Amino acid sequence: MTATRIPTWTRHHLLDVDELSRAELESVLDLAAELRTRRDAGELPDTLRGVAVGLAFYEPSTRTRVSFQLAARELGATVTDLSVAGSSVAKGESLVDTLRTLERTGIRQLVFRHPASGAPYLAARAVERTSIVNAGDGTHAHPTQALLDALTLREALGSLDGARVVIVGDAAHSRVARSDLHALVRLGASVVLCGPPAWVTVFAGWPGVSVLTDLDAALAGADAVMALRVQRERAAGSGVPSLGEYVARWGLTAERLDRACPAAWLMHPGPANEGVEITAELSTAPRSLIGRQVENGVPIRMAVLSLLATETDRW
Amino acid sequence: MTATRIPTWTRHHLLDVDELSRAELESVLDLAAELRTRRDAGELPDTLRGVAVGLAFYEPSTRTRVSFQLAARELGATVTDLSVAGSSVAKGESLVDTLRTLERTGIRQLVFRHPASGAPYLAARAVERTSIVNAGDGTHAHPTQALLDALTLREALGSLDGARVVIVGDAAHSRVARSDLHALVRLGASVVLCGPPAWVTVFAGWPGVSVLTDLDAALAGADAVMALRVQRERAAGSGVPSLGEYVARWGLTAERLDRACPAAWLMHPGPANEGVEITAELSTAPRSLIGRQVENGVPIRMAVLSLLATETDRW
Amino acid sequence: MTATRIPTWTRHHLLDVDELSRAELESVLDLAAELRTRRDAGELPDTLRGVAVGLAFYEPSTRTRVSFQLAARELGATVTDLSVAGSSVAKGESLVDTLRTLERTGIRQLVFRHPASGAPYLAARAVERTSIVNAGDGTHAHPTQALLDALTLREALGSLDGARVVIVGDAAHSRVARSDLHALVRLGASVVLCGPPAWVTVFAGWPGVSVLTDLDAALAGADAVMALRVQRERAAGSGVPSLGEYVARWGLTAERLDRACPAAWLMHPGPANEGVEITAELSTAPRSLIGRQVENGVPIRMAVLSLLATETDRW
Repeated sequence: MTATRIPTWTRHHLLDVDELSRAELESVLDLAAELRTRRDAGELPDTLRGVAVGLAFYEPSTRTRVSFQLAARELGATVTDLSVAGSSVAKGESLVDTLRTLERTGIRQLVFRHPASGAPYLAARAVERTSIVNAGDGTHAHPTQALLDALTLREALGSLDGARVVIVGDAAHSRVARSDLHALVRLGASVVLCGPPAWVTVFAGWPGVSVLTDLDAALAGADAVMALRVQRERAAGSGVPSLGEYVARWGLTAERLDRACPAAWLMHPGPANEGVEITAELSTAPRSLIGRQVENGVPIRMAVLSLLATETDRW
Repeated sequence: MTATRIPTWTRHHLLDVDELSRAELESVLDLAAELRTRRDAGELPDTLRGVAVGLAFYEPSTRTRVSFQLAARELGATVTDLSVAGSSVAKGESLVDTLRTLERTGIRQLVFRHPASGAPYLAARAVERTSIVNAGDGTHAHPTQALLDALTLREALGSLDGARVVIVGDAAHSRVARSDLHALVRLGASVVLCGPPAWVTVFAGWPGVSVLTDLDAALAGADAVMALRVQRERAAGSGVPSLGEYVARWGLTAERLDRACPAAWLMHPGPANEGVEITAELSTAPRSLIGRQVENGVPIRMAVLSLLATETDRW
Repeated sequence: MTATRIPTWTRHHLLDVDELSRAELESVLDLAAELRTRRDAGELPDTLRGVAVGLAFYEPSTRTRVSFQLAARELGATVTDLSVAGSSVAKGESLVDTLRTLERTGIRQLVFRHPASGAPYLAARAVERTSIVNAGDGTHAHPTQALLDALTLREALGSLDGARVVIVGDAAHSRVARSDLHALVRLGASVVLCGPPAWVTVFAGWPGVSVLTDLDAALAGADAVMALRVQRERAAGSGVPSLGEYVARWGLTAERLDRACPAAWLMHPGPANEGVEITAELSTAPRSLIGRQVENGVPIRMAVLSLLATETDRW
């Protein structure tokens, strides 16, 4: 068993993918692919031995929280989950005070989810030595989701260079869509956003991004199609059609994909509303990468925590 | 220190004891007894090193949840407790989707408690590689409780062959009673159920089981007596007497046991309502095995997880 | 790397500092200082390998709970956090029964916080082999906070012998103040309590303690000043002035400290109400030891758990 080579990283936090160069993005994906192989072989390194990792989730989560926990623990970290009821929030302690306290107790990497867009940037300014890992902030960013989506697509397509990826749904309010846009375009793909105008036009004119409201036109020539989760409470919002109309115009079905882009892969960040943005049949079809997306969650988070740890070593 | 010999098991899940042969039951008890000795000597093997164990409790629990946690951690597993507030249940994700996601993240053994009888069978059909361990489902089954009760009785009596075990209380709604029935009868005991007719007659005619409403008649010749916890909200149900009448007719007291079966052991799955199904005096009497039942919880769960891990190795 | 020398302790529980002799207090501080150095060097011993530590917090906490978790895990313990929702409390199990159950499952050290003053003494009587560590009980005691405060002061002053420490605020209802009083006086300091009469006169006449209501008189000659957190709901209580009057008469400001005791260190157990008991400026001033107090939390808890483990070995 050869030692895993972890390239030294120059970043101290992971707040969004938009700050990562193409070379940095690829180094994360390469390391994740290697760690996935080593995990399957039961030969993981103990890269995070002696590193105290904290999880502070201010929003519900199963898949992201569990995959960060497993990633950190399997690499040997000491993991403390702060997401239980009964924190000092009840005493009115400010977020900044809580973060500084955690840093002082020795937490070196803090995985942080918060309903307020931008909260991880506030967190990163509050601490000095602790690395902040954004696990999703409001409608802003979800960088590890974008990284695992990029890895999954690269595995399926060989390369993202020149790929056409269609994202269907409420991109305007989706931190997944926003981070995916950045990562996929930087890795060489072109992205087509499709959905009701109120959900997609905000991204018109972004480099590498085109916006279409007609689904069949969007799907033509697609290499991959990603459906976003419909937030039912938003489906009745201003400028947005009823849920029934959404399903009829933008719901993904096997027939539609077979007709417009028979070779395209299907993705979804989960959990899916089957029968709304995709059919139940599609989610387990041979073209579906949904399971693979989940499987790549742990290796991607292992890669991110490992790279941040190499940076922290220099403190 | 010799290596612990873990017999290869052919089962992938533990859903109920009724699926286990007598030889399988005995192999669990034998391994648990050995692990108990090794635990006391500080010489536990790291059988679960590299195995990701998840705990998903959809019902409150202290003793079962803690004993599974200790069992898994002390054998070297990576343990993730999913029982905190803030799961994707809040997003409306279905149970099946949650289980498949956990499997994809690498959880290999899932300890699962659910208020719906039969839910672990649904869970077992939803996953492919993950072992489901039923930690109690509705009024149906609680297999590890039955195993630790059987181990405790075997230690006290030497063997269950020909033993007469009386179970007093609401057997009809008790997953403990139902699993105990199966395990004890298969290991050679005869079981007497005793309580108000509405709580016991459902088991009339089961092999190895007799049903009596008169407590003194039931206790005569008993080798062990197990009191079930009275659910106070059920004590006023149809066909069931008031709490006061229950205590008078079926409450266990030292005087009653001394008269009817002076040598019988006393058991209770806990937590007990002292002054209802048993007196406070009885729960700490020399004849009480209640503490021993709790002590056997960790070794039994260690044995079950170890046996399932040997099976999983072949995947 | 030389082995850490852990002096054998004769105590089985840590319920309050008032039971510790001066030599015992100093042995905890010495061991904590050594463990802090070793932690910074990444050379911690695995003193708690094989020890099952449970955390049972019946009150909210971030800093105390996290620092106990890190302390136990980094020394190699198996840590189970029982503070999540969904314990058997929902089934009406008594505290004593819960504690006995935890002991029977193998928990050897139980870190225990409870809103009822004296609850840890009840806990200690309920168990036989498990060590109870009081992490704060009602308005009674918070021994590990007092120990970390003593360590922080000893670091800053060299010695507590002859030091004058002023504690400002609601000492009557503060478990921190009460435990600090005992520890600091036993280590040779004199303590001045200052605040509204209803908050301080209860300690009049205690050995080593003087009580003053005039803040400037209290501060004169102080080596260190500790502000207590104002519980806003109490500030309007009987015999206590309004919040505005409290701030005017007893709020700590840089000007006041510069005038009365320019060399004095500032402390606060946190989380602080900035603008009430201290100004925001003071909490990060060079004279502030607040960050150091938090940093000493993990080493102090490591020392306490290590010392209790040596005692438990003899069982």
